[in-house]
Amino acid sequence: MPCHSNEELKRLVSEAKKYTKHGEVADYIPALKKANRDDLSVAIYHSDGNCYSAGDIDQKITLQSISKVLTLALALIDCGEECVFDKVGYEPTGDPFNSIIKLETSRSAKPLNPMINAGALAVTHLIKGNSVIERLERIIAFIRDLAGHETITYSEEIAKSEFDTAFLNRSLCYYMKQDGIINENVEELLELYTKQCAIEMDCLDLSRIGLVFAMDGLDPVREKQIIPVEVARLCKTFMVTCGMYNASGEFAVRVGIPAKSGVSGGIMGSIRNRYGIGIFGPALDERGNSIGGIKLLEMMSKKYELSIF
Amino acid sequence: MPCHSNEELKRLVSEAKKYTKHGEVADYIPALKKANRDDLSVAIYHSDGNCYSAGDIDQKITLQSISKVLTLALALIDCGEECVFDKVGYEPTGDPFNSIIKLETSRSAKPLNPMINAGALAVTHLIKGNSVIERLERIIAFIRDLAGHETITYSEEIAKSEFDTAFLNRSLCYYMKQDGIINENVEELLELYTKQCAIEMDCLDLSRIGLVFAMDGLDPVREKQIIPVEVARLCKTFMVTCGMYNASGEFAVRVGIPAKSGVSGGIMGSIRNRYGIGIFGPALDERGNSIGGIKLLEMMSKKYELSIF
Amino acid sequence: MPCHSNEELKRLVSEAKKYTKHGEVADYIPALKKANRDDLSVAIYHSDGNCYSAGDIDQKITLQSISKVLTLALALIDCGEECVFDKVGYEPTGDPFNSIIKLETSRSAKPLNPMINAGALAVTHLIKGNSVIERLERIIAFIRDLAGHETITYSEEIAKSEFDTAFLNRSLCYYMKQDGIINENVEELLELYTKQCAIEMDCLDLSRIGLVFAMDGLDPVREKQIIPVEVARLCKTFMVTCGMYNASGEFAVRVGIPAKSGVSGGIMGSIRNRYGIGIFGPALDERGNSIGGIKLLEMMSKKYELSIF
Amino acid sequence: MPCHSNEELKRLVSEAKKYTKHGEVADYIPALKKANRDDLSVAIYHSDGNCYSAGDIDQKITLQSISKVLTLALALIDCGEECVFDKVGYEPTGDPFNSIIKLETSRSAKPLNPMINAGALAVTHLIKGNSVIERLERIIAFIRDLAGHETITYSEEIAKSEFDTAFLNRSLCYYMKQDGIINENVEELLELYTKQCAIEMDCLDLSRIGLVFAMDGLDPVREKQIIPVEVARLCKTFMVTCGMYNASGEFAVRVGIPAKSGVSGGIMGSIRNRYGIGIFGPALDERGNSIGGIKLLEMMSKKYELSIF
Repeated sequence: MPCHSNEELKRLVSEAKKYTKHGEVADYIPALKKANRDDLSVAIYHSDGNCYSAGDIDQKITLQSISKVLTLALALIDCGEECVFDKVGYEPTGDPFNSIIKLETSRSAKPLNPMINAGALAVTHLIKGNSVIERLERIIAFIRDLAGHETITYSEEIAKSEFDTAFLNRSLCYYMKQDGIINENVEELLELYTKQCAIEMDCLDLSRIGLVFAMDGLDPVREKQIIPVEVARLCKTFMVTCGMYNASGEFAVRVGIPAKSGVSGGIMGSIRNRYGIGIFGPALDERGNSIGGIKLLEMMSKKYELSIF
Repeated sequence: MPCHSNEELKRLVSEAKKYTKHGEVADYIPALKKANRDDLSVAIYHSDGNCYSAGDIDQKITLQSISKVLTLALALIDCGEECVFDKVGYEPTGDPFNSIIKLETSRSAKPLNPMINAGALAVTHLIKGNSVIERLERIIAFIRDLAGHETITYSEEIAKSEFDTAFLNRSLCYYMKQDGIINENVEELLELYTKQCAIEMDCLDLSRIGLVFAMDGLDPVREKQIIPVEVARLCKTFMVTCGMYNASGEFAVRVGIPAKSGVSGGIMGSIRNRYGIGIFGPALDERGNSIGGIKLLEMMSKKYELSIF
Repeated sequence: MPCHSNEELKRLVSEAKKYTKHGEVADYIPALKKANRDDLSVAIYHSDGNCYSAGDIDQKITLQSISKVLTLALALIDCGEECVFDKVGYEPTGDPFNSIIKLETSRSAKPLNPMINAGALAVTHLIKGNSVIERLERIIAFIRDLAGHETITYSEEIAKSEFDTAFLNRSLCYYMKQDGIINENVEELLELYTKQCAIEMDCLDLSRIGLVFAMDGLDPVREKQIIPVEVARLCKTFMVTCGMYNASGEFAVRVGIPAKSGVSGGIMGSIRNRYGIGIFGPALDERGNSIGGIKLLEMMSKKYELSIF
Repeated sequence: MPCHSNEELKRLVSEAKKYTKHGEVADYIPALKKANRDDLSVAIYHSDGNCYSAGDIDQKITLQSISKVLTLALALIDCGEECVFDKVGYEPTGDPFNSIIKLETSRSAKPLNPMINAGALAVTHLIKGNSVIERLERIIAFIRDLAGHETITYSEEIAKSEFDTAFLNRSLCYYMKQDGIINENVEELLELYTKQCAIEMDCLDLSRIGLVFAMDGLDPVREKQIIPVEVARLCKTFMVTCGMYNASGEFAVRVGIPAKSGVSGGIMGSIRNRYGIGIFGPALDERGNSIGGIKLLEMMSKKYELSIF
């Protein structure tokens, strides 16, 4: 389904684009480095099935940290709330997403929340399946279902590139293995996790998934409840308290919508009972969020009164 | 205005009371120690001016950390958002409310947010007035206005008791003075802060103030805009991301309403456009929140669908 | 050369043995768990070639952390002081030997010193050779030379047991690989490191190596300079400032001799120009040092005036 | 007693002076700022009563952190080892001297050692006397006795300047008061501590005090045991493990003598049974030690074989 190009959105995007020059494209993976700093596009998927967009929304991006929300949902479906929060906490943290300190200093050895890398790795650890391949297929099938898009898959090139350099994530995994938080083969978990992060889609897909969360787990297009209500709402809660790395508090104040960002420059947002949002803008601010994307969401939030607060 | 005693609320309170025996009354101030562990009461102030209650809602409690939201509102009115967030950050923290570590390790010397002690002290520092007395009078006048209750004042006994033992808060203040976050006399700031924390009211007052925040700053009874809309919403955002000490993330998942707790056992909650909630339950869990109060809010949130997520 | 059993030493050992019941045998490796808590033995190797002993000094123990001093010496010989201290710092730390925090918080990414695990791994990384086998053979040859004992080798059982469970050390390695401190295959480095830690010898060997350090690198028996003077003295400096885990400061005050301990319960000590000491006492105190061994050294230091301070 | 100017020392000083241009004079106190960056002088007091010097050794400097060793000695005399180490630990730390983090993260609330600011404040807290004046007089009398110089006193200007700006030390004090490490009035303790730090002397005095420690507490000139042997040796141990801020480990390797530095640019050293050293060189390196002084000691240590290792 093609999205309708929308003039009002175009004006907002054009306004937000002015900020992209203050950001930088992620450089730790060669494939991400190729992105064009000035790109900014958005798709808005309404609950009535209509979609509005601005910019080049066919461009593919990898999910990166956005995938953390999706595997959290799947892990909650797979093994339940108690099982998940036996491995990971509920609390936001003022530390960077890749910090290891709290694993040592917290009384509990659990990662503080499922949105930091350690917590996301512990969540992916819980995804069921008899092999990395089977678990990956389950994640991809789940995401295809959410997006209503049967050809979604991952980028082998980006997955490989991340896998080869994921030393810090390996460090986090072994630390958690020491503490019994995870107990599988670390290389296998890393393979699964980097492939999950490398799943590719376009803004339209992203907005469609955002819509499912916005509708408390229901895909209104196919009238299918893909995620249980409680799971969808729990995920949105984490999007608010920890979705934008250690800028989540400021984002809550300035924008106030459940959203999750990734270092590819993607942001997925969910406006309850109204619509899902998919944004792609690879220029990042110093905390790793799309600088144009945040500006765009701030303008949209003010204009359309989207804040939950 | 007396509140109507309500049977349904009574049943919920009676159910939540079962958990109070697992908590402990705060013991670091003699006056707080005198509280009865099994007490639990609640007042709900509706936007139509009606009030419903259960338990002994006339009992007076001191605001303690609940006051942090109120001085944040006043400081924002006094000197504006830019001025306030020049002194304090927006981000939740996984550290305890009285931790000093982040002041040393953060690149910025600013306290992470206005709900931890360091941040609240930095906010009170910004309250305008020519003397401690004048600033205290302004805080009290503001709170009287919010509660529509002209005789609210502070407990000299509790203020003195806290002032005499507030060594950790002094430590935080001097650390911030070193870094230029605050530049007034520390003993004066401490006097103001401990008196602010010792302001006394009952659950009814608390629910009425909660209602003003729920109505985006408007007192619907007197039809008076006491707090600018933007300020009220900003305060509610912090209530969600950092209002329940380092259990805020779990509270967001389980309850999902803007709320602020204090070690006296009080909790103030705000349900947008609907009502304000005032709770008193002095038995605290290990993270310093009213154990019965949280349970009661959890039950109310499920029953009346109060979560913002 | 058999050691002479010595009555005075026997009395001291018997006195120090009273404290072993307050300690615990290391339990994180099955093979270490088998040790007898009440064992305590000592060998003292004099510069004149005489040796005195008490207890069962033929019992074999693995070097564990004692090996850190020996690989430091070899790395300094292999690549020089500048090269070594490009990878690791000079400073003692108040943190436990296996802490990861400072790797994240230090301005420099270098481990603080070569006696904590991270630092020792970075040092072993520098040992020259074309393969793990060749590097291990070089370490073993060096240690055989130091002990004047050609059959010293490592315990395959203990090496394997440690290798299989060394998750925290893997975490430290990957953290350092992220920061460019090490750049070899982590599993290979871990294999080398765990084998180095599993090198076995008896108290006599240990005392003989201690003697070489005491003589500034000279083996007085064979009149052979095995370690350059500067290297030997540098190693002894680290034995004083960081040799006894995070009890090094207290040990310096109470005993005051260059010494290095391991979780197997071994301690190697060096009394300048006088003698080397080898101790085995598997009951450990809470900081991981032989409880009887430390007591014995304290008594010996007082009796024979061994402190360097 | 005038010191003999010594040609060899002059040459070493002249060599070491080349490094002073890479350092900076301490700027946090106006009075210290006035120092001349290129100054460097040294006095060496031999056990036979002879003294050799180079540079302007009559210039007065304040003790600053050097005083920490002297109050440690007096506190040990006043209340004994057990009493002192009930308040402060034995362990070096990799953190800066003014860090507050470990007070919060250590299982024990005790400062890690008596040479960091928190520990030194806890030690000064133990100095006996009925008032600040009496305790200060006792400290000064003790130092006059050590230096054999009856007119030593403190600089009121520098004491006042430090007292007025010692916010971080106040923060440390209140943190320790919260934990029961100290229980006196903080302003009084700060007054005593800043006056102690502002005690003035010249290099000759400093070298004479260093000699007393070198002689295990005996003033060989007057043949008077001023400090008990055990106390003197304990102090020297801390000078080795923690005497040069968080460069103590590197100093032990490169120089290897018991020494204590201050931000005024002073260094006091003790060569066992041989001599005391007093140095003044106000240009500091980034860790707060006299850059010329350290270089000078390094050259002297190599030339005269002074290292204890």
